Formats: sequence, C-alpha cells, structure tokens
Amino acid sequence: MDIKFIKREELQEKPDQKKLGFGKYFADYMFTMDYDEGIGWHDATIRPYGPIEMNPATVVLHYAQETFEGLKAYRRADGQIQLFRPEMNARRMINSNERLCMATIPEDMFIEAVNALVKAEEDWVPSEPETSLYIRPFAFACESSLGVHKSKAYKFVIILSPVGAYYAEGLAPVKIMVEDEYVRAVQGGTGFTKCGGNYAGSIIGQVKAEKYGCSQVLWLDGRERKYVEEVGAMNIMFKIDGEIYTAPIEGTVLPGVTRDSIIHILKDWGYKVNETHLSVDDLMQAGRDGRLEEVYGTGTAAVISPVGALVYKGEEITINNFKIGELTQKLYDYLTGIQWGKEEDKYGWTRLVK
Amino acid sequence: MDIKFIKREELQEKPDQKKLGFGKYFADYMFTMDYDEGIGWHDATIRPYGPIEMNPATVVLHYAQETFEGLKAYRRADGQIQLFRPEMNARRMINSNERLCMATIPEDMFIEAVNALVKAEEDWVPSEPETSLYIRPFAFACESSLGVHKSKAYKFVIILSPVGAYYAEGLAPVKIMVEDEYVRAVQGGTGFTKCGGNYAGSIIGQVKAEKYGCSQVLWLDGRERKYVEEVGAMNIMFKIDGEIYTAPIEGTVLPGVTRDSIIHILKDWGYKVNETHLSVDDLMQAGRDGRLEEVYGTGTAAVISPVGALVYKGEEITINNFKIGELTQKLYDYLTGIQWGKEEDKYGWTRLVK
Repeated sequence: MDIKFIKREELQEKPDQKKLGFGKYFADYMFTMDYDEGIGWHDATIRPYGPIEMNPATVVLHYAQETFEGLKAYRRADGQIQLFRPEMNARRMINSNERLCMATIPEDMFIEAVNALVKAEEDWVPSEPETSLYIRPFAFACESSLGVHKSKAYKFVIILSPVGAYYAEGLAPVKIMVEDEYVRAVQGGTGFTKCGGNYAGSIIGQVKAEKYGCSQVLWLDGRERKYVEEVGAMNIMFKIDGEIYTAPIEGTVLPGVTRDSIIHILKDWGYKVNETHLSVDDLMQAGRDGRLEEVYGTGTAAVISPVGALVYKGEEITINNFKIGELTQKLYDYLTGIQWGKEEDKYGWTRLVK
Repeated sequence: MDIKFIKREELQEKPDQKKLGFGKYFADYMFTMDYDEGIGWHDATIRPYGPIEMNPATVVLHYAQETFEGLKAYRRADGQIQLFRPEMNARRMINSNERLCMATIPEDMFIEAVNALVKAEEDWVPSEPETSLYIRPFAFACESSLGVHKSKAYKFVIILSPVGAYYAEGLAPVKIMVEDEYVRAVQGGTGFTKCGGNYAGSIIGQVKAEKYGCSQVLWLDGRERKYVEEVGAMNIMFKIDGEIYTAPIEGTVLPGVTRDSIIHILKDWGYKVNETHLSVDDLMQAGRDGRLEEVYGTGTAAVISPVGALVYKGEEITINNFKIGELTQKLYDYLTGIQWGKEEDKYGWTRLVK
C-alpha cells in the first residue's frame, strides 16, 4: 500500500504521562483512506490530526453505518514498541463491516495502516507503568443521500490516544448492576459487531447503573432476559467452584480479543472454561452460597477489571469481600506482562512495530 | 427563540420538479443549534447549507448517539404551504432522545425551528403533483472523547430536500420479503426510536430482499421471530376478512405518524382495526385461503405503499392479483388530499407555515 504523508506545521506538546486518563488526548497525526464503489480503497494518507468536513446529509449522521476497533501499542522496557494480536481486530472489523453492509478493509491493509501510523508517531507511545497508546480505527458511510440504502462511499480513519488506566480507580474492584429492563443485543441483531448503534443503545443502562451506585451494567440476553452476556465495554467471566464461566460467542456477545487470550491462558493453566449460558438466578445463588469465588471483566481498554459486587433486583452479592481475586490478579499480571514485553510471548501474540 | 440568519452569497439553481427523486437535492439553507451541558440549547441559526466540521473523536462517529425525524411541507393549490402533524414528530424525537440519553429539543422549539426554516425557504416547496419538501431534523452527540458515556454536547440540525415519489415505481405494488434470519428490534431495545443504529443494522435485510427480487423487508419480532412487526422504512397493515391488522406500539415498532393518521381514518370509516401480534403463519395462511385482501405500508416518505406479494421461506403469496387494493387507493387519495389541502382537514392535522 502506498501511503502518502502530509506534514504538520507544528507539533503539539505531549501531555503528562501520569495524568492521561482515557481517550482525551490525541496524537499529531491520523491515518485516512477513502472508498468509492467501482474504485475500491484509495488515497491512504497519514495527515495532521484535524477536523473532517462532513456534508449534513452524510449517511453516518442519519443511519449510523459505522464500525470501530480498539487496540493498543505497548512500550517495552527495551524501548521497542509492540502491538497485541492486531490481526484479531482486523478480522473482527471485517465481520462488523459485513454485518453492516459496509466495504471491508482487508486484514493486511488494516495492519499495515496501524503499523505505519504507530511507527510515524512512536514518540507518542508512553513509557510510564500502566500506560499505552490506544489505537482507534473506525470506518463510516460518507455518501450524502437520505434514502436508506447501502452506501457507495466510506472513510476509514485511525486516530491515536495515549492512555493510562481505563478506570480512574485503577485495578480496584467495581460494583456492577444486572440490567433487566433494557436490552443490548439479540440473536440476529448486531451484538457481535463493534458498531456504533450497540453503544448508543446501551448508554441508558450505564446511566441507570450509576444512579444505583454501580460503575457498569451487566446485560442479560435479549430473548429471555435470563442469561448473563457481557458488560458492554467488556466481556465478563465468573469463577464458580473453581471453574470459569463466560457467555458463548453466538451472535449477541462481542468476541473480545482479551476474552480469547484469557481463555487460552486459563486452559493452559488447567482451568475448565465453560463457554455457556449461565442464568442470572444460578449466578446469584452461587453468590449467596459462597461458591462465586471471583468475577472479572476482560477488554482491551481495561484489560482485566475485577468485580467486587453484583446488584440484581435490589439484592447485592459481594464477591471475595470486595477484594481482587487471586486468579484475577494473576491473569492481569501475566497478560499485561506479555503485552508490555516483560513475560515471554509463548503464544506469539505480539508484533513489533517497525 | 431568537434565530440568527447568515446570508448565502449565491443561491443554487433549483432542480427539475419532475426529476426530484428522494433526498438527493438540498435547499440553500439549514437550521443549526448547539447544546452544551450547563448552558442548554443556544445559537439557533439559519445558515447556508454546507459542511459541518467534525473532530475525528466526535462521539457520533464512534457510538452513534444520533436520532432523526422526517416530515414534509406541502404546497396547496392556493399557494400556501402546510405541515402535517409536526407536533407528532417533535414528541417522537423527544422519546428517541430520551432513550439514547441525549438532550431533548422541546416541542415548541422544534416546531418553531421547522416553521422558520421552511418559511425562509418557501421557494423550495415544489408544486408539481406528488412533490413536497422533505424536512429532516436530526441531532447528534458532538463531544470529542473516546470513553463510552453520555455526551455533554449535541448539535440539532434541520435540512430540507424537495422530493418526488419515494419509490421510482410510483404507487405501484411492491414485493416484500419476510426476514427470518436477521432481527431489527427487540423489547428493551431501541426499536421505537428513530435512531441511526436501527437503520444501520437493518440494511442487510434490505440487501438480502433485493437479492430475492423484493423491494423491502418485513421484520418479525426479535424474541420468537414469529409475529410481523414493520418494514423498516414504514409500518405495515393487513386487511384480512374485512378487518385491519397492524403491530401494536409496544417498544419494538416505530410509532408512525402516518400509521396513527390512517388508524384514525379507518376507525372513522367504520373499520375494525386490530393493533395486535399477527403471526406470520396466520398471515401466510390467510394469503393461501384468499382472505388476505389488501396489504400496504404507511410512512411519511411514501405515505401509502401497496404491497402486491409477500415472500416467506421461499413461498410467494400474491395479494389482490398484484394490484392496488380499493381501500389502499382510497386511503392514499384521502390522506394525501388532506396533506396537499385538497380535502377538508376535519382532524385539524395541518398547520400553515407563516
């Protein structure tokens, strides 16, 4: 792929690495590429980060034909930079775009674009503990026409944001509310994709959870509102009687890269992992009986997020005395160890940026 | 409301009223208004139609916090211009925005903005038969930050497009495919709103329908995929044994303004209207038995759209010999008669633009 480079006049001052937060600062450059029916993807360019001009009739502003991805570049102790399983993101974006009838970005093109942009912006990969460069590829329909139809033109953009821990609280356990009124996804819908609509529809659950003193929502299945699915910003796993339970990938749950990695590691460590429909009633009963040993979320942004309590229909179940579980901590240390290059990468998951 | 006016240097040439199509041409001016938390809506402005500058990290491009409406301005024979039940659109947009946790536009503000823009652009309301000025109000989250959260800033925009008939075929019956793989909406989701995500997720059904020689999709409920709901771009009604059947407004179906108007008219005409869950099996059986007398879609864009055939699991049922039904034609003539000011407005549905 031939990538054009448009130089920026003046570079920004870089933010304090100790106060990054999540998704608030953006690197100097972004990657853009356009698609037109009959031509394909063209004009791959690394250009100064800046506004995109949009016709008010652009399809994405009306019918939300848009998908995104999220991955990170990590600074190793030796100064080199590495990505974590970027091909998983590339493939997931292809699946997302196919479901939304959008032009797909071939896997090698996706990885080349990510690699080239991160390479160009390597000074933006922070080195403080727990920090990384969050990479946000996204695509949207940019034809200007109001009839509801498959767009003939798309834009693919990658922006970069240096980030600290996703939760201000760090690796502290969070309280999660089980939502039984609103629904995030149903079989036949878009739940397995990273499309904007999934997130727009789930903000109401987040707002409600916060009202009840919880920091996240645990969604139930859309058909029976009986089985636990995911947390919206992450997948979720439960350790009950020594075994791990998590929702299967069957169309409603996002196939998380961290989820998949953790399942690999757990199996290697000898754990039985049940990718199965776990009912919220069985989950709460396990909590009451003291058999629910650990709960944690998995996702690129937070990596592993321990859950200290679950609230469902007014009942609150505390997990492991609201302390990080032993396995949760071990998984976090090991996986982030691979990501930052402190642990040997025996799975071949990392890819040096060069 | 104080509306600022920014004059345009040069006006566009108006398109041929006989070749308008749908949503392809846009009037010279648009309305814009901004919302910021703590300030509320501000800077209401009628300005030249033109690009909106958007930061690449704008929430709407990632999490699709966006809603829209659709209504029309009609040119009467006496030259005056009228809107049709705009308060219904204003209220529906409030409901949409509340579900998506977006700032709401008060009803009077919405109507004032629509009225002021149409008044300013009255030359753009076409006068040829079957033409009108389509009004597209839309709102979206415009904060720039990548954490998934309720945005603190929104933009409300209204654009205008002179339109002809929605379907190129005119009031000719269309063939519709009943979709049993993909799902549009489920209880607890966003089906009752006009949010972008609903449309992004349903394009795949449209594409599939076209493959099978159909022009639209008939969606089934998301829980059992058993009951007929709506067509995505319109609500749908069935005349079986002299009675009318249509899906109830219970969270998954869009509460259409045309749907509501047609139900009023039908009841006045003495028809029994059943807002009930009609199973696709019962529907197909009625078709086989010759009891399915007429089928039509209702929506602002197409008003009334006769359905000539239904395809479900490979079986095709023809309705009324693929001809417009008598009631369908009568409803179309009467409702469009009110909209264009040819029929007496006994329901008080129209509102002169002044």
